[in-house]
Amino acid sequence: MSRFSEPQHPDFQRLNASIGFDRRLWPQDIAQSQAHARMLAARGIISEADGDALIKGLQAVALELAEERFPFDPGDEDIHMAIERRLTEIAGPVGGRLHTARSRNDQVVTDLAMFTREAAVAAGAAIAEAMGALLKRACEHAATAMPGYTHLQRAQPVYLGHHLLAYFWMLERDRRRFAYARREAGRLPLGAGAMAGVNFDTDRAMLAAELGFEQVAPNSIDAVSGRDFLLDFLGAAATCATHLSRLGAELVLWSSSEFGFCTLPDSWSSGSSIMPQKKNPDAAELLRGKAPRVVAHLTALHGVIHALPLTYNKDLQEDKEHLFDAADTLQLCLAAASGMIAGAAFDEQRMREAASDELIAATDIADLLVKLGMPFREAHGVVAGLVRTALDSGRALSELTAEELAAQSELLGAHQGEFREVLSSSSWLESKISEGGTSTARLAEQLTRAEQALDEDPFG
Amino acid sequence: MSRFSEPQHPDFQRLNASIGFDRRLWPQDIAQSQAHARMLAARGIISEADGDALIKGLQAVALELAEERFPFDPGDEDIHMAIERRLTEIAGPVGGRLHTARSRNDQVVTDLAMFTREAAVAAGAAIAEAMGALLKRACEHAATAMPGYTHLQRAQPVYLGHHLLAYFWMLERDRRRFAYARREAGRLPLGAGAMAGVNFDTDRAMLAAELGFEQVAPNSIDAVSGRDFLLDFLGAAATCATHLSRLGAELVLWSSSEFGFCTLPDSWSSGSSIMPQKKNPDAAELLRGKAPRVVAHLTALHGVIHALPLTYNKDLQEDKEHLFDAADTLQLCLAAASGMIAGAAFDEQRMREAASDELIAATDIADLLVKLGMPFREAHGVVAGLVRTALDSGRALSELTAEELAAQSELLGAHQGEFREVLSSSSWLESKISEGGTSTARLAEQLTRAEQALDEDPFG
Amino acid sequence: MSRFSEPQHPDFQRLNASIGFDRRLWPQDIAQSQAHARMLAARGIISEADGDALIKGLQAVALELAEERFPFDPGDEDIHMAIERRLTEIAGPVGGRLHTARSRNDQVVTDLAMFTREAAVAAGAAIAEAMGALLKRACEHAATAMPGYTHLQRAQPVYLGHHLLAYFWMLERDRRRFAYARREAGRLPLGAGAMAGVNFDTDRAMLAAELGFEQVAPNSIDAVSGRDFLLDFLGAAATCATHLSRLGAELVLWSSSEFGFCTLPDSWSSGSSIMPQKKNPDAAELLRGKAPRVVAHLTALHGVIHALPLTYNKDLQEDKEHLFDAADTLQLCLAAASGMIAGAAFDEQRMREAASDELIAATDIADLLVKLGMPFREAHGVVAGLVRTALDSGRALSELTAEELAAQSELLGAHQGEFREVLSSSSWLESKISEGGTSTARLAEQLTRAEQALDEDPFG
Amino acid sequence: MSRFSEPQHPDFQRLNASIGFDRRLWPQDIAQSQAHARMLAARGIISEADGDALIKGLQAVALELAEERFPFDPGDEDIHMAIERRLTEIAGPVGGRLHTARSRNDQVVTDLAMFTREAAVAAGAAIAEAMGALLKRACEHAATAMPGYTHLQRAQPVYLGHHLLAYFWMLERDRRRFAYARREAGRLPLGAGAMAGVNFDTDRAMLAAELGFEQVAPNSIDAVSGRDFLLDFLGAAATCATHLSRLGAELVLWSSSEFGFCTLPDSWSSGSSIMPQKKNPDAAELLRGKAPRVVAHLTALHGVIHALPLTYNKDLQEDKEHLFDAADTLQLCLAAASGMIAGAAFDEQRMREAASDELIAATDIADLLVKLGMPFREAHGVVAGLVRTALDSGRALSELTAEELAAQSELLGAHQGEFREVLSSSSWLESKISEGGTSTARLAEQLTRAEQALDEDPFG
Repeated sequence: MSRFSEPQHPDFQRLNASIGFDRRLWPQDIAQSQAHARMLAARGIISEADGDALIKGLQAVALELAEERFPFDPGDEDIHMAIERRLTEIAGPVGGRLHTARSRNDQVVTDLAMFTREAAVAAGAAIAEAMGALLKRACEHAATAMPGYTHLQRAQPVYLGHHLLAYFWMLERDRRRFAYARREAGRLPLGAGAMAGVNFDTDRAMLAAELGFEQVAPNSIDAVSGRDFLLDFLGAAATCATHLSRLGAELVLWSSSEFGFCTLPDSWSSGSSIMPQKKNPDAAELLRGKAPRVVAHLTALHGVIHALPLTYNKDLQEDKEHLFDAADTLQLCLAAASGMIAGAAFDEQRMREAASDELIAATDIADLLVKLGMPFREAHGVVAGLVRTALDSGRALSELTAEELAAQSELLGAHQGEFREVLSSSSWLESKISEGGTSTARLAEQLTRAEQALDEDPFG
Repeated sequence: MSRFSEPQHPDFQRLNASIGFDRRLWPQDIAQSQAHARMLAARGIISEADGDALIKGLQAVALELAEERFPFDPGDEDIHMAIERRLTEIAGPVGGRLHTARSRNDQVVTDLAMFTREAAVAAGAAIAEAMGALLKRACEHAATAMPGYTHLQRAQPVYLGHHLLAYFWMLERDRRRFAYARREAGRLPLGAGAMAGVNFDTDRAMLAAELGFEQVAPNSIDAVSGRDFLLDFLGAAATCATHLSRLGAELVLWSSSEFGFCTLPDSWSSGSSIMPQKKNPDAAELLRGKAPRVVAHLTALHGVIHALPLTYNKDLQEDKEHLFDAADTLQLCLAAASGMIAGAAFDEQRMREAASDELIAATDIADLLVKLGMPFREAHGVVAGLVRTALDSGRALSELTAEELAAQSELLGAHQGEFREVLSSSSWLESKISEGGTSTARLAEQLTRAEQALDEDPFG
Repeated sequence: MSRFSEPQHPDFQRLNASIGFDRRLWPQDIAQSQAHARMLAARGIISEADGDALIKGLQAVALELAEERFPFDPGDEDIHMAIERRLTEIAGPVGGRLHTARSRNDQVVTDLAMFTREAAVAAGAAIAEAMGALLKRACEHAATAMPGYTHLQRAQPVYLGHHLLAYFWMLERDRRRFAYARREAGRLPLGAGAMAGVNFDTDRAMLAAELGFEQVAPNSIDAVSGRDFLLDFLGAAATCATHLSRLGAELVLWSSSEFGFCTLPDSWSSGSSIMPQKKNPDAAELLRGKAPRVVAHLTALHGVIHALPLTYNKDLQEDKEHLFDAADTLQLCLAAASGMIAGAAFDEQRMREAASDELIAATDIADLLVKLGMPFREAHGVVAGLVRTALDSGRALSELTAEELAAQSELLGAHQGEFREVLSSSSWLESKISEGGTSTARLAEQLTRAEQALDEDPFG
Repeated sequence: MSRFSEPQHPDFQRLNASIGFDRRLWPQDIAQSQAHARMLAARGIISEADGDALIKGLQAVALELAEERFPFDPGDEDIHMAIERRLTEIAGPVGGRLHTARSRNDQVVTDLAMFTREAAVAAGAAIAEAMGALLKRACEHAATAMPGYTHLQRAQPVYLGHHLLAYFWMLERDRRRFAYARREAGRLPLGAGAMAGVNFDTDRAMLAAELGFEQVAPNSIDAVSGRDFLLDFLGAAATCATHLSRLGAELVLWSSSEFGFCTLPDSWSSGSSIMPQKKNPDAAELLRGKAPRVVAHLTALHGVIHALPLTYNKDLQEDKEHLFDAADTLQLCLAAASGMIAGAAFDEQRMREAASDELIAATDIADLLVKLGMPFREAHGVVAGLVRTALDSGRALSELTAEELAAQSELLGAHQGEFREVLSSSSWLESKISEGGTSTARLAEQLTRAEQALDEDPFG
């Protein structure tokens, strides 16, 4: 008999049911339930025979689910009820014992924590693959000069390998974020019951060990109310997606006729329905365009939790779709990033030409003056004057006359040889000798450091 | 022959394909294509015979889709290509003529605009239903006293009908927002081609008239790049969802044992898997919990459009899922709101008792003093003193002695009769005689105004 | 005497006080209070003499505020209390009568609505200025060819004037959004009191007329609880800011060495602290970078209102800073857009060269084949084959041999003359003859339509 | 001489200048510059004498800033230029040497990283204070029964101490998030120069050690482009603010007449301008209402970074205000939380009465049946039937007759004594004996664990 006298409204069922999306939690739910049954039997809360029957029955249910022949029922509101219903059909009334010392509140959040921990590991692996692709291309292009940009203006030349490694390090931090998120989801909620604990002296440490959790959640109320471990995961995903959006934006830019720095692989590009000549960087654009979606999942969950009184409230059902879509989206984006990086053809000549733009040696002229004893600010002004004189007359810096140089600065007038040497030299890149800089020796150091970082496992 | 030498990577196809979600645009796509074929024939761009063949072929395709027997192909990237492919299978090579003078860029955004306009009308209708439900209950409860709250503290008594109408007016504005969104989507993009217009002198006015658009988009670049009409729709949806979240929050509150103001219908409530006595206001909680999801769709689309160079970029494919889910979610939420409002049982006695809390007559005491000539600020202080005296001694205001009254204010001491009358009177509600106030006469006015507002059609 | 026995904690005062930001509402507050005093006297709720004293006193307070010599007091929690305190200092005890028949709840939201309506008009004017700047430059460049882009790939040539007008139309819609927001803020909240109406038969219609509101808010509860008019304003601001972010992004792109399409005015550019040659498009970058800030204000306010029970809650104090910063930010961004558009120097030669890229005539070749009788899809395939043949052999389309053409399509082999004419012709732009297309005649039509649109006043 | 021929537009200066908000970075900027000068001298890049002069000059500047007598100049665009300008005024031309081997790009992000690290520590300390307050009150109320809620329905009784500790553990995780954010900001950017490294062999390890950074950022491009350490900080702040919003919401609820569970301290409450009796929980409401603001800062920064090409772009100036306001807001919110928790008066009797609602023993009845051998699902149904029978007839569970019990279940009929014992017993709380549950022994364990957790320093 039910407490209710009226059936649920069909629209309410559509609003309320989560089976459409939570069914993918079945592997976690089966594993959790089997561990729970084992624990109940070990504690004598149910008999050994009942425990065995439950575990075996769950195995049969799992097989049906794995083979996609599980008979879903229109009345299955969520995957947890569906599995329990089917378990009882298969194993008989003993199925009803499975929910002893457990509530849907702690059951659901435990499934979620398990899923999150696995998704974090999967994200970490996909990130590592992208890191590997970047490192490989960085090694190949350790000597390919290109312009470095600030404000999308050519600023100083760098090696392409150095530029690619910038993304490597972003991803390296993102991987660590997922490791952090995994750790934060490491306190087992199972055993909290509806919210106050349960009426049995269960063995939660045994459950934690079986299910791979590091600890037991210390407070039953917090265990069923808290979703901040999902915020950690979504935060990691959002930051990673935002990083990938920068990579995507640069690949789009570099693939344009105007930049012409790279050609993306055909296998990651599209044509146009109307313009037969077009080769469009769709995958790179989607890297860029997917980030707001992932960030929105993060903010939506913040919104769901906002101002929510303890303990469990139905609003929290709004956690799963955000989690699932963020995990899936990021996984695809990382695959796209790896594929495009691995397959991109860089036009070294075009990059090199762009890097040899004389104007971008200007800082080095200023530094020459500093080395000759002029304070930096004064040197900066002198060179700015040179640049303006050159631009106003449509000439290159190297075309300025001795008089023009001396007019800007006597010191410069007296060191014209060094001035012209800096301009003509191909060594602008090599002058960046500070740690972390682009010079060949420093880049080699960095490549080594990156190899080590790739091998470190933050999930360990 | 294709411009490409390599097949697409499977992960790219998964990332790139939109068929999984854009298939629901088929009715718009068929209608658009039929109008397009008719126009092409009318302009002599294709022959009458070809036009007829296309229209008939599209009809056959539509039937397959409507009857869910359309043979989707693994290679169908989106619904537009799927329909064109199938059209060519059915109608023969003439199918290839359909894309004359059209690009996927203007085709897609036209489908979207059509969908948006219909979704806005649907949202408007669902809102009107909820407004009707609120108005009906407001009429029933035009004389049911309840406490009005500020800061969730009892502040002044109001009639429940007055309170319910507050939601009516929020929704009335939301309906107008959808009408605005519909209007803003009323400039036909079709005919913009890929982005520059097309090489044929098409008749866009004819297309607009056939497809129910008010105008033709004046600029082909803007037509394929712009998605602000979606921001308008999502903005309307977000505001409406946020309003519903307030209603949901109040229904949750009122259903608690502590408030006890209402009982939600069983058909919109859930039980607990572990606590047999529970009747949970799940639908009201989801009203509350769904708003951040809709708001997130709005912000995600802002993020997608952010900093996007003109014209069409693949990032814009990230518009559809946000639109669809926002429209669907809101539709369900409005149904839930209507259902709960229509079915809620209000506990009039409980509300009335809470409304007769003597403390909430305090403002009226102050106003009595004002009418007796005391400046409001001084009166406010006098009454605050009375309240403190009463609370400190654990008594009600009406239990204060004549001396205590006079100690706070001589004027009050001299008008104790009126003081006690205000406290004992059941007329606190009736004293709110200003326009829009809660007194019976004003509420009657408001109910009339609401009836008129409900009948007005902002979509007209 | 106060109801409280303990003073407020200093941290609470810092958290709670709004004087730091709401002081800018003083002009609205004064105007509102003067209208209120006039109404109170007209209705006989206060005497004529008191009414005059209040109005005169408020005038004196306004003068102090305007001349920045208003003596703020550490105890002033908000501007409303500060003004009333000062009024009482200046006008004597009569100042205490001003708050008759009014509460801070309706007072605050009325100030806000007044501010919003004025800010909407100001935004509309700044938008119109930017529209004017775009229109002027579009007229100047009605014949300047440039490449149109899809996916940031050169797609089809367009006139720069056509491209600039795309932004014109975005802004035209944004202006209408602000007009809508202004209208939605047009129902006067004043008179709602704390939330239930007031104990006096006030004349709200008189107040509405004096303060320029179209109507009176019909429900006192809704009047003090609702902030959706702010969501409308912030929504308009967010959409406009997102549009400007696209303009900013394009100006950054066009200012790069690689594109070289335009030079921004020195007056809207910055130098570098270290690289003397740099001229950075800081203003364009900030156009791009400010949009997320404005969007965040919108979502923050949604968050504040989310799940908030009626009526006024202190959370709503979190509306003002979002409103003020959004209004100010947008105003600056619009000034920057106008300034940069007006002052940008477009490099016509560079644009023209980029537009004459032969590959972007490919769609026109396909359309040639369509006109010769080939279905579009087949023609698309033929041209894709040509493009691949050309790219694979490093040649231009016009360098393909007769045999190569015939190999792709007999029809093409038979019409080589027309093929070469399309490629050599400078008329690709002029073939876009559909309404809204880029051809000279259509662009002229559009410029006329834009002029008319600029002159229309959606606020009327 | 400048590269520019036109002065900056005043609106551009307003848009571009950051001095209004970045001036608070002065302590970081001075410390950084002193360390930089020391390093330059140590490496022989400048002379010892120049190094000393710079350090002494910076000390003088710092004193002016600390004493608020620093002469800001209208031309000071940001705090970095202001300090350098003033340094040169005080120390003479040597001031110009300070910017050797440094760019504003690495300088700014270094200041930010320093600020972030300090702000993380400060947030950690404020969190620890709130944890301490919660723990203290939890100890006091380890035996105060109250109803635990799910779906805001009374579910199972818990001890108030147990409920308060739920917040303790949320904050414990938040503190760890800030420790994580601090660590992630631990790679020194200084020395990256504009983006490619600098032309001097600087000693970045020395700088890192002096400024308290754990490592040196390995890639100069990443160092000036990356802001993910700010996302970590804002993410921690957002999660913490969202947690506090739940606490705020509960305090508002509990302070209502309907709940009546607690009275907030006067020092953290407000009165009403019109209703003299009101005591409003403004601080609790602001706890609730501030969370969306902090979350919005997080999402805004994601938006700023979205799709941004490397390396530094002016958009990144939009990082500071979000950081500062998030840090300040959170600090105030934590103070409010601590103050309210410490000062709240809990109404134990009221809570206890609410906790003894017979209906909330229902789960225990079901568990009784389970212990008697009935499968849980069946037991759940039996009790649901009892509840419905009781509610339908307006009686309590304990008022059901023996026949009614037996009608629902023979087993129950046979164990009426135990049934009535469970209902009458005051031991419902004590039956929650599982780890983390609310029983006295388990709560004592938890209090001990909490004390240990409070003493652990995640920043160590």
